[in-house]
Amino acid sequence: MVSKHLFTKKELDAYYDNLKKENLGALWKDLGHMVTKEPVHDVKPYLWKWKTVRDFALQSGQLLEPGKDAERRVVYLQNPSLIDKGLIGFGTHTLYAGIQLLLPGEYAPSHRHSQAAIRFIIEGEGAYTAVNGEKTYMERGDMILTPAWTWHEHKHEGTEPVFWMDGLDVGLVKSLAASYFEQFKEESYPALAPEEYAIEQYRGGAYKKLNEKIEPGYPSPVYGYKLDRVKYLLDHMTEEDNDPYEAYAIEYINPSTGGSADGRIGTVMQKLVPGQHTKAHRHVHSAIYHVFEGQGYTVIDGQKFEWEKGDFFILPPWSYHEHVNTGEEDAYLFSYNDKPVMEKLDLEFGNAYEENGGQQIITSTFKAEANEE
Amino acid sequence: MVSKHLFTKKELDAYYDNLKKENLGALWKDLGHMVTKEPVHDVKPYLWKWKTVRDFALQSGQLLEPGKDAERRVVYLQNPSLIDKGLIGFGTHTLYAGIQLLLPGEYAPSHRHSQAAIRFIIEGEGAYTAVNGEKTYMERGDMILTPAWTWHEHKHEGTEPVFWMDGLDVGLVKSLAASYFEQFKEESYPALAPEEYAIEQYRGGAYKKLNEKIEPGYPSPVYGYKLDRVKYLLDHMTEEDNDPYEAYAIEYINPSTGGSADGRIGTVMQKLVPGQHTKAHRHVHSAIYHVFEGQGYTVIDGQKFEWEKGDFFILPPWSYHEHVNTGEEDAYLFSYNDKPVMEKLDLEFGNAYEENGGQQIITSTFKAEANEE
Amino acid sequence: MVSKHLFTKKELDAYYDNLKKENLGALWKDLGHMVTKEPVHDVKPYLWKWKTVRDFALQSGQLLEPGKDAERRVVYLQNPSLIDKGLIGFGTHTLYAGIQLLLPGEYAPSHRHSQAAIRFIIEGEGAYTAVNGEKTYMERGDMILTPAWTWHEHKHEGTEPVFWMDGLDVGLVKSLAASYFEQFKEESYPALAPEEYAIEQYRGGAYKKLNEKIEPGYPSPVYGYKLDRVKYLLDHMTEEDNDPYEAYAIEYINPSTGGSADGRIGTVMQKLVPGQHTKAHRHVHSAIYHVFEGQGYTVIDGQKFEWEKGDFFILPPWSYHEHVNTGEEDAYLFSYNDKPVMEKLDLEFGNAYEENGGQQIITSTFKAEANEE
Amino acid sequence: MVSKHLFTKKELDAYYDNLKKENLGALWKDLGHMVTKEPVHDVKPYLWKWKTVRDFALQSGQLLEPGKDAERRVVYLQNPSLIDKGLIGFGTHTLYAGIQLLLPGEYAPSHRHSQAAIRFIIEGEGAYTAVNGEKTYMERGDMILTPAWTWHEHKHEGTEPVFWMDGLDVGLVKSLAASYFEQFKEESYPALAPEEYAIEQYRGGAYKKLNEKIEPGYPSPVYGYKLDRVKYLLDHMTEEDNDPYEAYAIEYINPSTGGSADGRIGTVMQKLVPGQHTKAHRHVHSAIYHVFEGQGYTVIDGQKFEWEKGDFFILPPWSYHEHVNTGEEDAYLFSYNDKPVMEKLDLEFGNAYEENGGQQIITSTFKAEANEE
Ligand SMILES: [Fe+2]
Ligand SMILES: [Fe+2]
Ligand SMILES: [Fe+2]
Ligand SMILES: [Fe+2]
Ligand SMILES: [Fe+2]
Ligand SMILES: [Fe+2]
Ligand SMILES: [Fe+2]
Ligand SMILES: [Fe+2]
Repeated sequence: MVSKHLFTKKELDAYYDNLKKENLGALWKDLGHMVTKEPVHDVKPYLWKWKTVRDFALQSGQLLEPGKDAERRVVYLQNPSLIDKGLIGFGTHTLYAGIQLLLPGEYAPSHRHSQAAIRFIIEGEGAYTAVNGEKTYMERGDMILTPAWTWHEHKHEGTEPVFWMDGLDVGLVKSLAASYFEQFKEESYPALAPEEYAIEQYRGGAYKKLNEKIEPGYPSPVYGYKLDRVKYLLDHMTEEDNDPYEAYAIEYINPSTGGSADGRIGTVMQKLVPGQHTKAHRHVHSAIYHVFEGQGYTVIDGQKFEWEKGDFFILPPWSYHEHVNTGEEDAYLFSYNDKPVMEKLDLEFGNAYEENGGQQIITSTFKAEANEE
Repeated sequence: MVSKHLFTKKELDAYYDNLKKENLGALWKDLGHMVTKEPVHDVKPYLWKWKTVRDFALQSGQLLEPGKDAERRVVYLQNPSLIDKGLIGFGTHTLYAGIQLLLPGEYAPSHRHSQAAIRFIIEGEGAYTAVNGEKTYMERGDMILTPAWTWHEHKHEGTEPVFWMDGLDVGLVKSLAASYFEQFKEESYPALAPEEYAIEQYRGGAYKKLNEKIEPGYPSPVYGYKLDRVKYLLDHMTEEDNDPYEAYAIEYINPSTGGSADGRIGTVMQKLVPGQHTKAHRHVHSAIYHVFEGQGYTVIDGQKFEWEKGDFFILPPWSYHEHVNTGEEDAYLFSYNDKPVMEKLDLEFGNAYEENGGQQIITSTFKAEANEE
Repeated sequence: MVSKHLFTKKELDAYYDNLKKENLGALWKDLGHMVTKEPVHDVKPYLWKWKTVRDFALQSGQLLEPGKDAERRVVYLQNPSLIDKGLIGFGTHTLYAGIQLLLPGEYAPSHRHSQAAIRFIIEGEGAYTAVNGEKTYMERGDMILTPAWTWHEHKHEGTEPVFWMDGLDVGLVKSLAASYFEQFKEESYPALAPEEYAIEQYRGGAYKKLNEKIEPGYPSPVYGYKLDRVKYLLDHMTEEDNDPYEAYAIEYINPSTGGSADGRIGTVMQKLVPGQHTKAHRHVHSAIYHVFEGQGYTVIDGQKFEWEKGDFFILPPWSYHEHVNTGEEDAYLFSYNDKPVMEKLDLEFGNAYEENGGQQIITSTFKAEANEE
Repeated sequence: MVSKHLFTKKELDAYYDNLKKENLGALWKDLGHMVTKEPVHDVKPYLWKWKTVRDFALQSGQLLEPGKDAERRVVYLQNPSLIDKGLIGFGTHTLYAGIQLLLPGEYAPSHRHSQAAIRFIIEGEGAYTAVNGEKTYMERGDMILTPAWTWHEHKHEGTEPVFWMDGLDVGLVKSLAASYFEQFKEESYPALAPEEYAIEQYRGGAYKKLNEKIEPGYPSPVYGYKLDRVKYLLDHMTEEDNDPYEAYAIEYINPSTGGSADGRIGTVMQKLVPGQHTKAHRHVHSAIYHVFEGQGYTVIDGQKFEWEKGDFFILPPWSYHEHVNTGEEDAYLFSYNDKPVMEKLDLEFGNAYEENGGQQIITSTFKAEANEE
């Protein structure tokens, strides 16, 4: 075996210099940058108040009209920890959140994109989303899918403003260089189904033409997920369904696969009973939360985020988190996440917080700070 | 409907300023940054000469010894277009390539990581990779899997240096904040199978304990893919198997799923007969190529990359590419890619180059430039 | 090679005699009994008039009461071609059909069995079937599943008699020596779901507990299949959906698999427009038909079976068949079959009748004959 | 409610008579014939001595030659309990067993059928089976598949007689009226693969053409299963793999599905160490056993079946059974069964024998009786 100690400092420096000039690198020096012992990321948690977001969204109703002045009228949540890297519209490294406003009579025209999207209805009713020509009407608390690359449009047939949250996997698709967008050449995609179809929508999944070949999978045969059903199921969960980390939690699924409703974006509604305080854990997947009902706080890596009805907050990847309901009513947290992606790629793992009885010591309390340039 | 024109310039500026202060954004201004009409990325193509890479790798054999001075002895390819963003070890946005050297008698100890890895043997024989204790011996041209999170180690029982290419999905796992690494507590993972097991390796997949439950999928029951079989199959392909864009091409698969051998990294061997010139196309997935045999060039987005035996080059995502064999023998290109990821996430799409008979006009020829700081 | 002609007639006879004595056989003599060139069977077609069947069923309403005098009150169809072999209750070699009557206020108690069952509602409304405690209410034309080994019971809350057809795979399960039956120890299985659950039944398939593992498959998440949806779909089929052999045909499916609603019994509704005359074909799977609406005839292996609303008829395996609507309205044929079994076992095949323009020459007309012993 | 007691005996008799005349039946009288509490069948156990069977098979070598005088030269096992019902060639209600002899230089021509077949080599070597043109050479103890509807032929290139057992699902296919047979129009199906292909046969499953679509499933990518591998695996099983009912048992599987090697016929090799005595259980599936090595006995529903090397015996469905090795060496039982059919149709269930410490009381000992007519 050749001796390993023939090199002078000068020779070594020359070796590394030359290596670099040839656009090569020495793994024995850089392995720690590439393969870390645990997930490493730049995503910080953040929280936005509903009142603030709603005000800006409502004002935007006077600034422009969808379909005329812009494709959509949305105020989006910008994670300040990611903006310096030019990651515009990033809530987490994979997920985007926007608050969309539609006024009575307005119409957001049909388009499709490779980003998957889910909607969660915050305020108002009487609007619908049409996916490939199939309409689903909105009511507060409903969740609606527009799976990746499906044509979708929104129209408001009601009388009061409608606000909803859009959740897209903008960051994921950007990281993978896979964005694709197309506008429908007509204003509106042809309506495929009778208006009442939406009501018994899934019935469509229970029949086929005799010689037709049906492959369960993408997209879900269900586009619209009603709040009342979710609440019914949460109310019928028993003590043993009460997960130490996630409390009472229902996931929206694609009945044809048994997996998440959207193939890339997971969606969950959690209920915390008054006084409930979960244990902390962390996992590879990240999430964006919307407080559907109630008040309380969430501790993320030792920082306390106080929330009330309507607020939004970011759960970064690989961050310890626990939730507390401080109110006198049940609290409901709706959230969406990138867990299906991590699971499809065999990259989801996590662990419980073991110390201090499983609950973190609070080291600071979050206070939104104005982003001064 | 409220008039849309009540705002003065000053009011508007204030609106946008305040929005920004609250870490909110106006989608109607920024949509084009988030959802692009086509994939957008910063990955540029590049090419490294085998002679250069081999020299640096061989010298590193005198600098350090694996298992003593470092985990592994590898010279890696650094895409210069990505280093400014701190993306150390990135060949493409998702894929890494390194050239590993093992000298006779040396041993690279057992570890595992969430990154998937494939190896392609470039020079030498007599070394083996053990995956979860199962040995696969190396010969030039073989491909060996070490699926994500499997224990793996390398040992050289032969007499001449062995060089192989490591392909990992470093960039993907980093983008998804999902890196995890663990060293085996002993030097070597216990050998599970008799030495000759590797020879009839897959036989292990054809039997099970009566009450055992076998789920086909991860990892592949095959770890070692022999060159002779690939050549045999390429030589028995017919004219109608000759793909206009990919020539004669064989993919390495996981026999239990029919999909790619590794669940996240695709692996392909292409053969170009003398004079063959493929048509150009592009696709979301990116790739790293190694010239196994032959000489020729590849045109990437109008730039000509001339190659010969042993060279490596980068195919960025969404870049038109066509291959030409200028030699008098068959040329063989081995490549690995992130196509399985794009397919699992329903993000793979592409198109053919339509103009000029399907072949690009060459606008420049690549020349490696020294990377001066 | 030994000469093959050393044997005397006597020696040969002795060989075969001795073989038989040892309970051995000579395949070269018997292969044709075991492996036939085409399917061979003893099932003959037959037809029953609704009026006859209904009368007997209605009279049985005065003979006994379910839950008291018997498990169920059903008049079943006995294929006369199979009774001599002791195949009691066989409609085809695999399928059974019975007509069940439930009078107002009556109740058929909970039990389960390894036989799969489907119900098709012929007359009346206000009764329900509860499957594992989940109620589905009946209306004329609906199809209801009680998958194998699920607890099921029926109750009539309405005011007029309800008649429905039961379809079970009695013959299949008997041939496979796999019958298993259990009575629920209480009268009624506990109701799991609120009464209105049945209305939006499938909603249950669109959510799960966060940590629950859902495997799509058995049983279908849908138990009740409404007539209006089937008619809607049949009415929206286009000319190109008009199958030459099966006319306009909708299959009831399990939305979680894309396959047949029940895993072993296929269910189909066919529509023939006035004057429609399909082409003949045959296939391994057998079926039992119920004329839901209309009048016409079916030709089975050259024999004409005239039918009108309410009638039942047998389609044996491997028998050419074609359907004709002779009425002035659309005709609707509901049928169930053993095709899912044949497909799961890779035993389904068939062929079209090629001669005479694809339509058989009628050689006789079926006339029910009294079964005199 | 109408009174239930208006009927005179005479009226009732008339009702039932008329019902029968119309080919209808009263379920309340006949349910017990259709839906039994437990499996009911006519299959009795039986045992054949190897010496007897071998003698008849060897003599048949002088009676006829395959490919000239007959399709195949096979002496089959006829279960005497089934012959009265005309069930020629039935070992169980679903399975057939035959002993095939091929002499040096002989050839059994190519054909295919809807029956699935497995072969187990009992004596000799040098013959091969070609499946769709791919040859697998035989050695004692090997198992070879010829999946349903694949072309297959046998040829003997060695010097001594070869004997093997054929296992087909003759009874199953007959019960389902699904037999289909075709002779290849030439003598021999074209050889697809080089002769040495068989040696590294499965390698073919680890590669595909780049644009090819591979669906794992039928048929298995492996046709030949070598004895040495099975023995190796049995010898490396630990005490905890020792199943109380099945001893040390290895199942032959299809590596692309993880399920049974053939899709309808299960195949198992069991090892009993000297003195081993399993506990009794029963199950819906039936089996045919061949004693590969050793001596002992099996108790089936209280009857003792003594066996030694080479013998064959029948395990009927739903029959308690336990195995005992009385020899001084390991005993090896090869068996094939209809379990995959029962599992695909959700009809497999079973139970352990609970009394007497799990082992039956022997009430009789089997003695083959000459079958006198
Ligand atoms: Fe959109
Ligand atoms: Fe969590
Ligand atoms: Fe590694
Ligand atoms: Fe390409
Ligand atoms: Fe029943
Ligand atoms: Fe048909
Ligand atoms: Fe055969
Ligand atoms: Fe058993």
